[in-house]
Amino acid sequence: MSSWKNWRHVTKLDPDKVLHSEAVEEIASSGTDALILSGTLDVTPEKLSSLFDMVKDVGLPLAVEPAEPSGARFDGFDYVFVPSVFNSQKTEFITGLHADWIENYEIDWSKVVAEAYVVLNPSSSVAKLTNAKCDLTLEAAASYAVFAEKYFSMPVFYVEYSGTFGDSEIVKACSEVLSSTKLFYGGGIDCGEKAAMMSEFADTIVVGNAVYEKGASVLKETVDAVI
Amino acid sequence: MSSWKNWRHVTKLDPDKVLHSEAVEEIASSGTDALILSGTLDVTPEKLSSLFDMVKDVGLPLAVEPAEPSGARFDGFDYVFVPSVFNSQKTEFITGLHADWIENYEIDWSKVVAEAYVVLNPSSSVAKLTNAKCDLTLEAAASYAVFAEKYFSMPVFYVEYSGTFGDSEIVKACSEVLSSTKLFYGGGIDCGEKAAMMSEFADTIVVGNAVYEKGASVLKETVDAVI
Repeated sequence: MSSWKNWRHVTKLDPDKVLHSEAVEEIASSGTDALILSGTLDVTPEKLSSLFDMVKDVGLPLAVEPAEPSGARFDGFDYVFVPSVFNSQKTEFITGLHADWIENYEIDWSKVVAEAYVVLNPSSSVAKLTNAKCDLTLEAAASYAVFAEKYFSMPVFYVEYSGTFGDSEIVKACSEVLSSTKLFYGGGIDCGEKAAMMSEFADTIVVGNAVYEKGASVLKETVDAVI
Repeated sequence: MSSWKNWRHVTKLDPDKVLHSEAVEEIASSGTDALILSGTLDVTPEKLSSLFDMVKDVGLPLAVEPAEPSGARFDGFDYVFVPSVFNSQKTEFITGLHADWIENYEIDWSKVVAEAYVVLNPSSSVAKLTNAKCDLTLEAAASYAVFAEKYFSMPVFYVEYSGTFGDSEIVKACSEVLSSTKLFYGGGIDCGEKAAMMSEFADTIVVGNAVYEKGASVLKETVDAVI
């Protein structure tokens, strides 16, 4: 299995949404590099298990990105992507839930990938939940990127526009200040053109909602457009 | 100059307090490994400069630990220790001030040492300023330590009892879960016995207030007691 660091295109699937079994085959053959199972709201262990069972044999690296401590799961997953929302205005989403998680759960650190998020769409569930300060200038967003890399040695800096297509200038500004930290972009990628725009700057683009809204064919189209 | 990682005993001097020139000689000959200039309140650039001028020629490694962005200073200092208060209940002390600092100041990252603090004395200025959640169990404190090391790769985990002598069981619990991250302990060390108790578990002990309250002779006594 190739390391997550080589992923250019990732498909994010939400355990709280309905995925048809025909879509699974299309996902498998799309050329996407990996699957991340992730949702902000109403992700139960049962829903996660059900989605895991549908996709576990597609032959792609599989990660889970928990929204809260009980959502982390190691068995069967190659990676657990753990976010810290750097522009949250609630401390629990930066350091609080993490300390609870460590205190109360068994963790296989060899599978954990730490993600520094900035959440930039104020209408998104994740922005509301975390009370994120979304009105960041280019310079402020880039400062969080530098902070994540230089101060915290985070492997991933994630620009998240969840639900809407974001400002590529912000992604560009972040890409210009990062060196070893990988830049992920997610939000609103639903066609090849948008995939190309963001993959010019991001190391890894994430396609999520479009799989449900436009069908899994969006994956091959966006994979092919990655620059 | 030996790396900060080898420091066992550090003297913390507050730019907002009066240091007599006779004390400077005693500090120089005490055997302490380094000086950190650091205060929580009312540290102006002028006060910092004046303390710097008093101690710059004592032949010890010199660090500054800013309480806010304008307090960082690189010229003349070997290190800038930059805290993030992991148990703060105000996001600015975890990620906010840092992003502002990066956006608005020139930073020499080769001098920056990132510190994950837990602040545990609720009566201290730093606990009040940062609204720190101080009532941590052994397990919760140790969880922050694991979080700092495994998730954020922090070089320093700092157990801060500023102004009072802390619970050595907490320091012990943190020391047991850390491997590469260095454990600093500060608070209430004013005699050899207390220095010995905490240096059994901490990689580095910090003596601060006692220099002002008992005189600089406390340094030699606490240096000699380091285990």
